[in-house]
Amino acid sequence: MGNCGECMGNFFCRQKNTNVRISLPAVCLVWQIAMIVLFGVFIRYDEESDVKKWIEFKHTNNITSDIENDFYFRYPSFQDVHVMIFVGFGFLMTFLKRYSFGAVGFNFLIAAFGIQWALVMQGWFHALDPNTGKISIGVESLINADFCVASSLIAYGALLGKVSPVQLMVVTLFGVTLFAVEEYIILDLLHCRDAGGSMVIHAFGGYYGLAISWVLYRPNLHQSKRLNGSVYHSDMFAMIGTLFLWMFWPSFNGAITDHGSGQHRTAINTYIALASSVLTTVAISSMSEKRGKLDMVHIQNATLAGGVAMGTAAEFMITPYGSLIVGFGCGIVSTFGYLFVTPFLEKYLKLQDTCGVHNLHAVPGMLGGFIGAIVAAAATEEVYGKEGLIQTFDFEGEFANRSVLTQGGFQAAGTCVAIAFGLVGGACVGLILRLPIWGDPADDNCFDDEVYWEVPEDEESIPPVLEYNNHMIHKHQDISESNFSVEQS
Amino acid sequence: MGNCGECMGNFFCRQKNTNVRISLPAVCLVWQIAMIVLFGVFIRYDEESDVKKWIEFKHTNNITSDIENDFYFRYPSFQDVHVMIFVGFGFLMTFLKRYSFGAVGFNFLIAAFGIQWALVMQGWFHALDPNTGKISIGVESLINADFCVASSLIAYGALLGKVSPVQLMVVTLFGVTLFAVEEYIILDLLHCRDAGGSMVIHAFGGYYGLAISWVLYRPNLHQSKRLNGSVYHSDMFAMIGTLFLWMFWPSFNGAITDHGSGQHRTAINTYIALASSVLTTVAISSMSEKRGKLDMVHIQNATLAGGVAMGTAAEFMITPYGSLIVGFGCGIVSTFGYLFVTPFLEKYLKLQDTCGVHNLHAVPGMLGGFIGAIVAAAATEEVYGKEGLIQTFDFEGEFANRSVLTQGGFQAAGTCVAIAFGLVGGACVGLILRLPIWGDPADDNCFDDEVYWEVPEDEESIPPVLEYNNHMIHKHQDISESNFSVEQS
Amino acid sequence: MGNCGECMGNFFCRQKNTNVRISLPAVCLVWQIAMIVLFGVFIRYDEESDVKKWIEFKHTNNITSDIENDFYFRYPSFQDVHVMIFVGFGFLMTFLKRYSFGAVGFNFLIAAFGIQWALVMQGWFHALDPNTGKISIGVESLINADFCVASSLIAYGALLGKVSPVQLMVVTLFGVTLFAVEEYIILDLLHCRDAGGSMVIHAFGGYYGLAISWVLYRPNLHQSKRLNGSVYHSDMFAMIGTLFLWMFWPSFNGAITDHGSGQHRTAINTYIALASSVLTTVAISSMSEKRGKLDMVHIQNATLAGGVAMGTAAEFMITPYGSLIVGFGCGIVSTFGYLFVTPFLEKYLKLQDTCGVHNLHAVPGMLGGFIGAIVAAAATEEVYGKEGLIQTFDFEGEFANRSVLTQGGFQAAGTCVAIAFGLVGGACVGLILRLPIWGDPADDNCFDDEVYWEVPEDEESIPPVLEYNNHMIHKHQDISESNFSVEQS
Repeated sequence: MGNCGECMGNFFCRQKNTNVRISLPAVCLVWQIAMIVLFGVFIRYDEESDVKKWIEFKHTNNITSDIENDFYFRYPSFQDVHVMIFVGFGFLMTFLKRYSFGAVGFNFLIAAFGIQWALVMQGWFHALDPNTGKISIGVESLINADFCVASSLIAYGALLGKVSPVQLMVVTLFGVTLFAVEEYIILDLLHCRDAGGSMVIHAFGGYYGLAISWVLYRPNLHQSKRLNGSVYHSDMFAMIGTLFLWMFWPSFNGAITDHGSGQHRTAINTYIALASSVLTTVAISSMSEKRGKLDMVHIQNATLAGGVAMGTAAEFMITPYGSLIVGFGCGIVSTFGYLFVTPFLEKYLKLQDTCGVHNLHAVPGMLGGFIGAIVAAAATEEVYGKEGLIQTFDFEGEFANRSVLTQGGFQAAGTCVAIAFGLVGGACVGLILRLPIWGDPADDNCFDDEVYWEVPEDEESIPPVLEYNNHMIHKHQDISESNFSVEQS
Repeated sequence: MGNCGECMGNFFCRQKNTNVRISLPAVCLVWQIAMIVLFGVFIRYDEESDVKKWIEFKHTNNITSDIENDFYFRYPSFQDVHVMIFVGFGFLMTFLKRYSFGAVGFNFLIAAFGIQWALVMQGWFHALDPNTGKISIGVESLINADFCVASSLIAYGALLGKVSPVQLMVVTLFGVTLFAVEEYIILDLLHCRDAGGSMVIHAFGGYYGLAISWVLYRPNLHQSKRLNGSVYHSDMFAMIGTLFLWMFWPSFNGAITDHGSGQHRTAINTYIALASSVLTTVAISSMSEKRGKLDMVHIQNATLAGGVAMGTAAEFMITPYGSLIVGFGCGIVSTFGYLFVTPFLEKYLKLQDTCGVHNLHAVPGMLGGFIGAIVAAAATEEVYGKEGLIQTFDFEGEFANRSVLTQGGFQAAGTCVAIAFGLVGGACVGLILRLPIWGDPADDNCFDDEVYWEVPEDEESIPPVLEYNNHMIHKHQDISESNFSVEQS
Repeated sequence: MGNCGECMGNFFCRQKNTNVRISLPAVCLVWQIAMIVLFGVFIRYDEESDVKKWIEFKHTNNITSDIENDFYFRYPSFQDVHVMIFVGFGFLMTFLKRYSFGAVGFNFLIAAFGIQWALVMQGWFHALDPNTGKISIGVESLINADFCVASSLIAYGALLGKVSPVQLMVVTLFGVTLFAVEEYIILDLLHCRDAGGSMVIHAFGGYYGLAISWVLYRPNLHQSKRLNGSVYHSDMFAMIGTLFLWMFWPSFNGAITDHGSGQHRTAINTYIALASSVLTTVAISSMSEKRGKLDMVHIQNATLAGGVAMGTAAEFMITPYGSLIVGFGCGIVSTFGYLFVTPFLEKYLKLQDTCGVHNLHAVPGMLGGFIGAIVAAAATEEVYGKEGLIQTFDFEGEFANRSVLTQGGFQAAGTCVAIAFGLVGGACVGLILRLPIWGDPADDNCFDDEVYWEVPEDEESIPPVLEYNNHMIHKHQDISESNFSVEQS
């Protein structure tokens, strides 16, 4: 029944029914139609993607070449981010032996829904023209939508294998909504800088997922233990995810930073921090096994911690060796997390975190927020130049007189806001998800694609031609039959 | 014998011989040498890739920066398209349990040949300098060559597992040739716009493959039924293909559209339409199974229908919600196609379509052509601006006075031309492929890599060290032996 | 004991101990801390990535747009190169049935270390400001670091499965160091052009790995023969590596060539050469089997030879048909290498080359160096233009009066320097690696992830639910137990 009180037990503990034939199509179709209506009412092309407005914009601003269109500054980075969202996050979660369809398939589904809802939600907060009541979108909006949905995908990492696709749609609906609000508070009201989203994406998304998972605690999850692990090839698929995340993280952190030196510097800093994380991850992983053997879980995850932790500070003048130090520390912290903190959380806090998002996103994201605060507070006009300081921290308009020290304070406050939103929002969403209407699997049925997917016959049962033609009794017949009876149950 | 008349039966029905030791090397070497000769006679660098001409071009056109070179406008999109052709199409077809080598390997072979032949064929029609008799190529030519070969790869999808590599080389030779002709008719003579190729690539390629497959109908294909399906990991490999196609489709549709707002808008529209397709595909797939389970075939394919259908209209001002509606509809149409139309075609029209290209390319491509026609016909000066209308539809030279309504009519006509070329061309090529000289497999030997590849021993037969050292009798010995005897037969 | 003399036998032939629990963490942590110190002392942002300097740079050089930042010229190509290094090289080596973790994991580790060390070493030789004593880095430095580490990854290909991760760190430490020196000699002192690294990367890296492998010869490697081969799915993972290398090779060769027509032409030439290699590889592979069956080893490797061989000449005016001819020849040479030369080397020269880097990198790289020399020597002012000749071959400063013929001679000399560095450097490093302190595996333990990785249970042993719940005796128990006893031994 979980750790949230027994009083509602009888209501929540009905027999599990994983049939989603009504609920999943209904949610998909209704929400998609809602998106069409909302897009029809609100969403329009911005001045760089509308053919008429772009021609006018070029005349007005005396732009002679189409290469000045923001598309050419951001599209390559956007595509890298897009790969991270769909292949990176999707394949990173395929490590479970029999949940690869769910990992990559549900990741696909909720990301595809989330980016639409994010375009609307983020548009309302950031790009609504008060005169026309319309939202203008361009390539930067697409990147921000991908960013926004990333936080929900991170939350999925904590829930992997234990929830139904309908629940995931709910997680994403609320996750995107909460994201848009906390992002507005942190970036606009507090005027923080967080281009790579250490705070708004990773800290928020990590704690959001952990809070949901905490509320959904399954005391008998050990009944699915046989499936809660990897096999050789599923670990290889997960490495596809890891590597695409790792390689493209410089694009992630730099996708929406300032044109010119901003994007350039962000890429360099992230590249360096990530390289450093790999070495410390390997060191700690090897040190923790009696014969020095490496653990794929660490290589798949902790190597990315440096990228998460540089989400805020990468666009600042953190210096190359500063980036190395951040990656060094976060690789260690994250690997220790997998070794000690995740088991501790599960045992004592009743927190089941399938992918260990606590160690990969929550903690490095939080650290990244505070690192950003420190680097911001330490900024000087000597290093940035007067114009550079204004440009980097956007000290314009009502924030023209803010000092870097104040900025550092607000950055730290922003990190706390992100964590608070994640924890409180996740707890509320978790309660909603405990309603017995979402088709989630029983405790002995978790981590199993059979529940929501038509799974093909087993690898082993490819019969050689002769056996087949002779209609020999197939050695795996009993296995197939038992699979069948599971499906019927 | 197929559904094309029995009269030629005796000639076509000889014993199958799948030995391609002479024919495959001969075709590869002869055609490659022909390419060298043709390139030597015709192909030269264009003014943006030739070092001398580019320096002159900059002087002449008063260009101050190298960033104005078309390379920087198109190369990132080109690389995305390149990934779609080789990894996207290649891995999408790896879903069969024992035809993954053939899927990705033959895709690689015919794409590598096709792009060379396409550079020559498309060059003759579009870039031949009448004074020098030379074809100038640049990055846009590379993109167009990739596009051209895509139509042959689509056709391969209908034929997967049933043809020899030599036949595929023939399919590609004629496919590229037919493509260049229909593209010339549609884009130059009819002056249609089709930047993402709904008509010229998808409708043509889809119907081309279907027509070939219809002529090559195998009444006894059920003899290979044991191999005509997926296993768990082959479905995961196919998802790599799906996701890279899905993610990079905005680049596909926008790779050769107008600089500036054209590429920008195309990317946005395609991104939105694809997101919408995912949700309706999931909805219909879940609805069609008694417990709401999803089918990987639908997720792998129908989610892409929105991208196909936006191939023509994405560069127009279709509006974001228009894109959503297109994706919404095409996800539904395509999934229904997999559920009902493909089985119907196989049963009643004797059309065996291995990958279901009818549902993913032929029909969405055709719909995309008509959607483009409607959006073009509905264009107004109010939305596009005077200059924007000219720029978007290329109303210049002899077409300066064409109205948008006329343009819409021509777009629709172009779609019909593409379909006609596919059907008639495919039927003719299919007849050629029925000659008994191409080394295609027997009906009970389809979908099997053993026929054309040296396949390594089975997964299961990795012996643990001790067993191996003790020379224990291996439990799979009989299986290995039976494989061997198949190979000998 | 190997082919390097028996005298040191007793010292080198102690019992193998593969426990790296002390050495691996020690090497990783010490070297990473050294990097932090070196970065702190030397590495700074360059004028295009430092916020203050970039603002000043724009003022000084009268640059009006941020798009002129080198970032926008090179970042898309950089990301392609990055994918080649981590996914391309990593997955290309996953073809072994039980060494996929080691292939992709150790590739990841040594690349992450190597790029850091390369930034320092290459910086000392190429970007050290004599006034400040600081190294300035930008996006081109990141590309060069990736290039530099590529040579060590190539060397890993020859050693795959036979060395410990600690040895690989040593290979990389010296590999990067040697690379920086030979690169300085070839590019700066000899003033060669080698943008895609036929000489400095492929010829050097290939011979470096071969020399190490020769010194580390294992006469009893046949004891691991059961694991020195592929299985069906491991070949598919390797194709991911092959295709990403193949597709992005145009970016590799063009990443640091001249802005404008230079990068444009390089991409075209490489694209064409690679296409041609595929067809001749298929032809020779098919021709060499009695029924014309293709061998995955050839498709995975020899198809890339055209890209390697164009590393030097691709930026020159080699003409499109010249590129086709290069690809044609190198596909043949490389496939013949796999068929005849690798077995010959192993049998008669006692050279064990796991991935066949001799055929993919060493020989095509050497050929590429000489092809570059010939194309350079044949350059004319008629083709390049006066300004183009200066720009392409950098005939400026002290080299202003060099003739193209002299340049050709120096290019050929550079190739020899690269090979000499590889052979001599590799032999020395090989001797170091024979010290019995590095934890390398015994001869009957090679190609086995069990040695350095915690490997999950086998694919086959996923029990269906009913069997599990009934605690039935598991049919694979004996296999698991034997695995366990291997691990203990």
